[in-house]
Amino acid sequence: MSHLEYFKNRHTIRKYQSQEISKEKLDEMLAAAFHAPNTGNMQWYSVVVTCDENKKQELAPAHFNQPSVTGAAAVLTFCIDLNRFEHWCKINNAQPGFNNFQSFIAGIIDTSIVAQQFCTIAELSGFGTCYLGTTAYNAPLIAEILKLPKRVVPVITVTVGLPLETEPQGATTRIPAQAIIHYEQYQHPTDEDIRSYYKQIEEESHKFVVENAKETLAQVFTDVRYPKESAEHFSKIYQEFIKENEF
Amino acid sequence: MSHLEYFKNRHTIRKYQSQEISKEKLDEMLAAAFHAPNTGNMQWYSVVVTCDENKKQELAPAHFNQPSVTGAAAVLTFCIDLNRFEHWCKINNAQPGFNNFQSFIAGIIDTSIVAQQFCTIAELSGFGTCYLGTTAYNAPLIAEILKLPKRVVPVITVTVGLPLETEPQGATTRIPAQAIIHYEQYQHPTDEDIRSYYKQIEEESHKFVVENAKETLAQVFTDVRYPKESAEHFSKIYQEFIKENEF
Repeated sequence: MSHLEYFKNRHTIRKYQSQEISKEKLDEMLAAAFHAPNTGNMQWYSVVVTCDENKKQELAPAHFNQPSVTGAAAVLTFCIDLNRFEHWCKINNAQPGFNNFQSFIAGIIDTSIVAQQFCTIAELSGFGTCYLGTTAYNAPLIAEILKLPKRVVPVITVTVGLPLETEPQGATTRIPAQAIIHYEQYQHPTDEDIRSYYKQIEEESHKFVVENAKETLAQVFTDVRYPKESAEHFSKIYQEFIKENEF
Repeated sequence: MSHLEYFKNRHTIRKYQSQEISKEKLDEMLAAAFHAPNTGNMQWYSVVVTCDENKKQELAPAHFNQPSVTGAAAVLTFCIDLNRFEHWCKINNAQPGFNNFQSFIAGIIDTSIVAQQFCTIAELSGFGTCYLGTTAYNAPLIAEILKLPKRVVPVITVTVGLPLETEPQGATTRIPAQAIIHYEQYQHPTDEDIRSYYKQIEEESHKFVVENAKETLAQVFTDVRYPKESAEHFSKIYQEFIKENEF
């Protein structure tokens, strides 16, 4: 299989075999991932690896008890980490000026990049991975459980393990690439364009419209999966947490 | 070369051959990258591809005239895009509730992930890539040049092209993986740990200390490369731009 085939067919894996991953294997894959590009080679990130069963149980509620947490061989929490770099600055007679939004943005981009590099490496090594978007919801609780110091902010959680055979194979449907790629300047879609972009996903996901007694798939997203009130609630928590961490 | 070897040895490439990349090749690599994981399969991102020489010239000042912009075969601006998804919601009788910080965070994570997936695919296909961290500095100017509508926020720029033979080969030195990986809970480094983590980078980068007439490498980062005043200035611009875009 050419590398392009892997990228076109990859799939999130939420259920895993009970087999552990050795520390050596995790370290090897993470060390390779740390060669991903990052801002100014400052590596403003840390990864907390949870293998201990009790710790996974402790983390689970922070991720709304999604079963991939306790079912994974390892749970990796990728964090923005300014603590380490600023420590280095302070013992080297340098005054860090990273208490600002741009440093937060650089940190979140670099943390996301390194998490994705790890996922690619893990998947190419035969493991399955799953991102949990809940990390930015319950960051204060996660920080407490993982004993994060100030200036360390959880951003992304990845669960990893050997895939159960019953897990789905092959690519999830995406909207057409031409909906996303704009040559030279942004191409404004018409209503007709938009309808055609989402046609296949609407057809394939029709059961969710029925199950949730909604009129359209879009309503499943806005009313059920990502309701405004919940997003606003967790926005406030994350913004306050970032502020407490001096970003 | 095993895939792990590629990941351990990859290197940013800033100088390119003058040869173009075909639209077909770019589309193929981007379409594969769009299978990267994303929040709820909502794909809140767009990519504006700049191949036109005049457009590259126009973009260059927004990136402080870094030569990789005008020298690249293509310049890719990866943006958070809520415009397309909310357009779909509106023509489907759904009220989007994404005008908040959590949606911005989901967008920036997903945009970073897809940019990184593209870079990995491009590098495995023989191209060189370079991230420009300047996108989040001059987002309003970039948005104007690329004619981005409201709710579309530039996050990352990647330049891409066939590497010049004179470009460096092999990995850039990183701090040791054990400085970044924490098992079960955050491991607080001592001053001695910190000194050992940065020892090799300090030795290899000593010339920058001399060139900039500083006492330590950390001061090169805090005083020369990433000064507080500049970060604060651009923080304000990006925060205002995000607000104008209703995040």
